[in-house]
Amino acid sequence: MDRIEHHLFVIFGATGDLTKRKLLPALYRVMNENEVADRCVVLGVSPGRLDDDGFRRLCRQALTEAGIADTGTDRWAEERIFHQFVDRDAPLDELRHRIEQIEAQCGLPGNRAFYLALPPPAFPGVVTALDHAGLDQAPGWARLVIEKPFGSDLESARALNQLVHAHFDESQVYRIDHYLGKESVQNLLTFRFTNPIFETTWTRDRLDSVEITVAEDLGVETRGGYYDGAGVLRDMMQNHLTQLLTLVAMEAPSSFTADAIRQEKVQVLESMRSIDPAAVVLGQYTAGSVDGAASVGYLDEDKVATQSRTATFAAVRVNVHNWRWEGVPFYLRTGKRLAERTTQIAITYKKPPVCIFHGIADDCPISPNVLVLTMQPHEGFEVRFELKEPGTARVVTQPMSFDYADRFPQLPSAYQTLLLDVIIGDQTLFVRADEVEASWNLWTPLLERDDIAVHPYPAGSWGPPAANDLLTTGDDRWTMRMRW
Amino acid sequence: MDRIEHHLFVIFGATGDLTKRKLLPALYRVMNENEVADRCVVLGVSPGRLDDDGFRRLCRQALTEAGIADTGTDRWAEERIFHQFVDRDAPLDELRHRIEQIEAQCGLPGNRAFYLALPPPAFPGVVTALDHAGLDQAPGWARLVIEKPFGSDLESARALNQLVHAHFDESQVYRIDHYLGKESVQNLLTFRFTNPIFETTWTRDRLDSVEITVAEDLGVETRGGYYDGAGVLRDMMQNHLTQLLTLVAMEAPSSFTADAIRQEKVQVLESMRSIDPAAVVLGQYTAGSVDGAASVGYLDEDKVATQSRTATFAAVRVNVHNWRWEGVPFYLRTGKRLAERTTQIAITYKKPPVCIFHGIADDCPISPNVLVLTMQPHEGFEVRFELKEPGTARVVTQPMSFDYADRFPQLPSAYQTLLLDVIIGDQTLFVRADEVEASWNLWTPLLERDDIAVHPYPAGSWGPPAANDLLTTGDDRWTMRMRW
Repeated sequence: MDRIEHHLFVIFGATGDLTKRKLLPALYRVMNENEVADRCVVLGVSPGRLDDDGFRRLCRQALTEAGIADTGTDRWAEERIFHQFVDRDAPLDELRHRIEQIEAQCGLPGNRAFYLALPPPAFPGVVTALDHAGLDQAPGWARLVIEKPFGSDLESARALNQLVHAHFDESQVYRIDHYLGKESVQNLLTFRFTNPIFETTWTRDRLDSVEITVAEDLGVETRGGYYDGAGVLRDMMQNHLTQLLTLVAMEAPSSFTADAIRQEKVQVLESMRSIDPAAVVLGQYTAGSVDGAASVGYLDEDKVATQSRTATFAAVRVNVHNWRWEGVPFYLRTGKRLAERTTQIAITYKKPPVCIFHGIADDCPISPNVLVLTMQPHEGFEVRFELKEPGTARVVTQPMSFDYADRFPQLPSAYQTLLLDVIIGDQTLFVRADEVEASWNLWTPLLERDDIAVHPYPAGSWGPPAANDLLTTGDDRWTMRMRW
Repeated sequence: MDRIEHHLFVIFGATGDLTKRKLLPALYRVMNENEVADRCVVLGVSPGRLDDDGFRRLCRQALTEAGIADTGTDRWAEERIFHQFVDRDAPLDELRHRIEQIEAQCGLPGNRAFYLALPPPAFPGVVTALDHAGLDQAPGWARLVIEKPFGSDLESARALNQLVHAHFDESQVYRIDHYLGKESVQNLLTFRFTNPIFETTWTRDRLDSVEITVAEDLGVETRGGYYDGAGVLRDMMQNHLTQLLTLVAMEAPSSFTADAIRQEKVQVLESMRSIDPAAVVLGQYTAGSVDGAASVGYLDEDKVATQSRTATFAAVRVNVHNWRWEGVPFYLRTGKRLAERTTQIAITYKKPPVCIFHGIADDCPISPNVLVLTMQPHEGFEVRFELKEPGTARVVTQPMSFDYADRFPQLPSAYQTLLLDVIIGDQTLFVRADEVEASWNLWTPLLERDDIAVHPYPAGSWGPPAANDLLTTGDDRWTMRMRW
């Protein structure tokens, strides 16, 4: 892996949950699986009173808990892991000295990634301080990685972009949406543009609708405080579902480069113009049962306001007004405490123009073809097709399917993919400034309304029944509820 | 199953191999599985000195050997099975009396099927005698079932049709091609015309080629005498492969009735005009090894002429000159003593018009999509599609697949399907007079040539390498050799 250069990976928020659960294991795996563990030195930064050894212990523990048991971890932690205390909002000159000292000690050429694993309010201060300490420039490359959420509406996202651009060039900025790192999401473009059997039918001429479901069975867990201020549109719809939509809907890029691809994604968002509030159904979970376990309602969750009207479920019908998609509704749906955890894109085809049994059968019980791309809980593909039931003249629906797990037992985690891309400098899977603004531009008008009803739905259901009223095509039911 | 009426099923050639191995087991299963075992009475006809009891023993043995072990077989044999001696070429008046007597005894309304499980030279005599004895008419329905081969070239097929039509109406005639009874073959039309995801791409705009392979691992076995006079074009190509081709290529019928469907099939044959002798590769197997077992060459088979030039392998490139198919070659291939037993239709799509990695990768290693319909040895479907190999940027080919055996453990045998259709009067899966003539019209000019080289190929191979020279599209290799 020649594209992995020697570098220093600086993590702000070194003692946080994300660092422990995701970043350290993913970094180790990336370096180890590419057999270049020595090329990455990690410098954890936090306001914690932690010395190098303390952070190394934390690092070893994180790797162990992630199930990494190989013999290289101890040595990696001992030789390639450091920690630097930095007080909140303090200047970063001391950090710069430490960086230069570690680079000298480890023989690094000065390539630096700065990963902000911090809550959003901390972003502006750190970005500014990095610049003031001269860390926006480096002897090698300097890259800035920003965790979601990137802003909380159009105005805040614009302000954050302006601030970032005052100190860093867009080519240095990596806005994380970890959904984009999933193997099946990454594969979307390869799948679309190497398979004419599907791509040539991927148009308004052939398709009835596109459905994107991101269903969580969990509730807000320990994040009630954050979630109650954010709600489902900010937490899931504006980022994950919108990203999936743009990948499904985009035109073929002129090349397979980050900017050509992101350009096409932005054009999808621009073709959507606006979202009709009448095509939005919001919901909030009440007490119920998920997988047999009793579950409290949202209003009884920790740190949630007593009378909160925050939505934990949203279903939205949107349209992409371009030559490919005009007239094909996109149904987006996401929520917490739903019946199961799943992420699926269902491409539903138009039914045959005539019934093969015309003149024989009175009704024509043919189901439309559906191409299902599943991202969670397993990753795979499925074509639902019609078949003559053997020994009868009945038509039944059956799946042709492919499951990644059958062929590729070990899929890299989303963070592995994304951290590797940061290190090799590939921005394809990161959200560009104009893209994040175009997405907020679409969703912000809805955030500003308080006249959209929030329907209660019991935990463990598929959301409020009102969501079905959005479906203007097909059989008036969500495809995701038809199980195999 | 109200459509199964009480009837008498008369089998000419009652002591033959086909009757024992296929007809009696299939008849019993059809009646038993539909729970109407009492509605079918079988009258075996042969020049054998056999009484009813003798034929009943033969029948019980046939059912046992077919693995039918239920408790109804003994009673069925005892009450519903009869035998009538008829000398070769004798008039059938005595048979008519016996039929009327059995019908009276068993309370049958006079529906009669006459199944000619006889060698072709016996057909004309029996057909004429049936008429002369008044058996072309019946108090109920009278149907004539004729086993393949139906003629040995255009002239003989025409003569046979004329003879049949002098005594029977075409609506009474059931020409058997047992391939058409296979579940996956029957399903071809349902599959095509209920699945727009495939049918809308089933045209010259989207497809590169269609490949039909019927490969046998067996040699001529005990049929050397017949085979040496017939050869592969008569034995397989004119009937089975041509039937598969017409089902793949035909337009949507105006209704799902036998005549509407057969009309479309004939039009495919008519659109083919003629076969270019330069697009035909013939072969004859030599000694080799199949599945590890040594195998003699064709010329050393029993009852084969010493210097025989009879072909046991044929590969042919044909074209269907109509709006849907112009420019899409159909590659047909069949042979004995090939590497394995398989029947497959492979629909190969055009490659993407541009390479997704243009500008990144120097070459574009993308394989075309292939839709594979497998009839033997298992029955199922597969879409070969391109996928990003997880953790890399490489594109790999993977299958989405469906196997009948996973969902429908018990498929009815081809003969079960076809006998049921004879009994209920559905001619869809039987070859119409004009269809069989159109097919012979296509193949007969090749049969009359003796200037086409017959290439030797070792038993256990995929036929002579010259067959590869026929491929004018794609990657110059037969799709069937790419295994999963």
